Amino acid sequence: MRICRYNDDKLGLIKGDQLIDVTIALDDIPKTGWPRPHGDAMVANIEAISVGIEANRKMGYVQGVNNVVLKSPVANPTKIIGAPANYRDHVAEAQDDAEINFGREIKTINEYGLFLKANSALVGPGEGITLGHTDRRNDHEIELAVIIGKTAKNVAYDDALDVVAGYSIGLDNTVRGVEDRSLRKSLDSYAVLGPWITTADEIDDPDDLDFQITVNGEVRQESNTKYLIYDCRKLIEYASKFYTLYPGDILMTGTPKGVGPIEPGDHLVCQVDIIGKMEVEVR
Amino acid sequence: MRICRYNDDKLGLIKGDQLIDVTIALDDIPKTGWPRPHGDAMVANIEAISVGIEANRKMGYVQGVNNVVLKSPVANPTKIIGAPANYRDHVAEAQDDAEINFGREIKTINEYGLFLKANSALVGPGEGITLGHTDRRNDHEIELAVIIGKTAKNVAYDDALDVVAGYSIGLDNTVRGVEDRSLRKSLDSYAVLGPWITTADEIDDPDDLDFQITVNGEVRQESNTKYLIYDCRKLIEYASKFYTLYPGDILMTGTPKGVGPIEPGDHLVCQVDIIGKMEVEVR
Repeated sequence: MRICRYNDDKLGLIKGDQLIDVTIALDDIPKTGWPRPHGDAMVANIEAISVGIEANRKMGYVQGVNNVVLKSPVANPTKIIGAPANYRDHVAEAQDDAEINFGREIKTINEYGLFLKANSALVGPGEGITLGHTDRRNDHEIELAVIIGKTAKNVAYDDALDVVAGYSIGLDNTVRGVEDRSLRKSLDSYAVLGPWITTADEIDDPDDLDFQITVNGEVRQESNTKYLIYDCRKLIEYASKFYTLYPGDILMTGTPKGVGPIEPGDHLVCQVDIIGKMEVEVR
Repeated sequence: MRICRYNDDKLGLIKGDQLIDVTIALDDIPKTGWPRPHGDAMVANIEAISVGIEANRKMGYVQGVNNVVLKSPVANPTKIIGAPANYRDHVAEAQDDAEINFGREIKTINEYGLFLKANSALVGPGEGITLGHTDRRNDHEIELAVIIGKTAKNVAYDDALDVVAGYSIGLDNTVRGVEDRSLRKSLDSYAVLGPWITTADEIDDPDDLDFQITVNGEVRQESNTKYLIYDCRKLIEYASKFYTLYPGDILMTGTPKGVGPIEPGDHLVCQVDIIGKMEVEVR
């Protein structure tokens, strides 16, 4: 199943190039005041709304998916987790590029562990990227994004994929500089997620997916998740030793070599096996 | 006004040592499904519930504040922001202590900027701190916490306090090590906020508040917010250049010298001028 959020927060079911309006299924999500439970209410209730989606899919308005504005399929994550230096070829390019390393030695995820991106940075592909700090270099970083589906702590490696709700394409955009990476990667619109959530049952092995990003038609990054230093299971095992994961937590798994500057007017096309294609404009 | 969250998510108004149950005021907070608006619904609606609190304060059940379990007064922040190396005396002690610096040069907030703590790390004083990674040093760091009250971007220095809802005491607990600080400071229960929100009208100058923390009766950290390198206004101005601030965002302003290890069984007493006293157990 492929579920998207679009336009004024409608819920859509994707079938090929078509989008079916299944917003009515959101009625099965309990309304809450304060405090609100941890996690994204749609992802936390994904089984409940799946029933509603199935029951209503033949009644929903159908249109081309290219006719809508796609928002982030996760609306309210408790946290967005990033995996720094998780492809060896990106570590190597960062070591060779003073505009990335600023004179510092680049280590790998084995030393850095994980970082956080601000929830307020999250947008969908249809909203686009609005560059900040344009006096500096701003880079694209395409990644496989894992969407956590269950509340989980201390997850074993072999059980790790059991807590996954699905997968999306992520852009972990970054301002280069010397500041803490949780700041430089947290500008508004610097976490792009989309085009939808492809539920976990559709992807047998998240650690063998081809992916690429083009900027204005030129291929910039092209790799396969099999080259991850910490693979998807290891990332979940490792993260859940530090903190509890909640439904809707987004785990951006890391980026391979080929990161580079983006400028206003650029058109990004991101593709990941099975998930599909996500197009994003830079403003 | 001093507002707390306690027991099973009740809302309390603090008057001296007394707590008045004003939970009924929460009825003025709109219930939402998915997606939920950014920010903590209580803080976002603080003016609306203030009316309800005032109208009902004489009808609420009264008890001693020591009889309840105090939770974090902010329940659902969009982000928790930290200010690294924001007191010169802490920078100096970190430079001198290999158990803090791990061979790395310690800079100041001028270079580091800000970092993030995971929202899932947030607890109130009554919930206590549960240590993780007990094979490593785990330190207390007492801080003044600023609670943002309005959606705000690119706030001018002189206007910065206008976006503040109130102040609390914060503990920015930290596992020492080489990993990214947004990971080491994000273990469950490593962001303690309490004992309540003291609304901004009660604190004329947040940059001149004495504070201290004792561990088992021994004073460990004692300072005044006038020694902040980036003061409260500057932190808000700086943060809001990178990302939008939302109601309920928590800005932990940084910690002075005296950070040190905590162990299970320790009893922490944190005090900040005007705000009051917060007691926390370590497990």
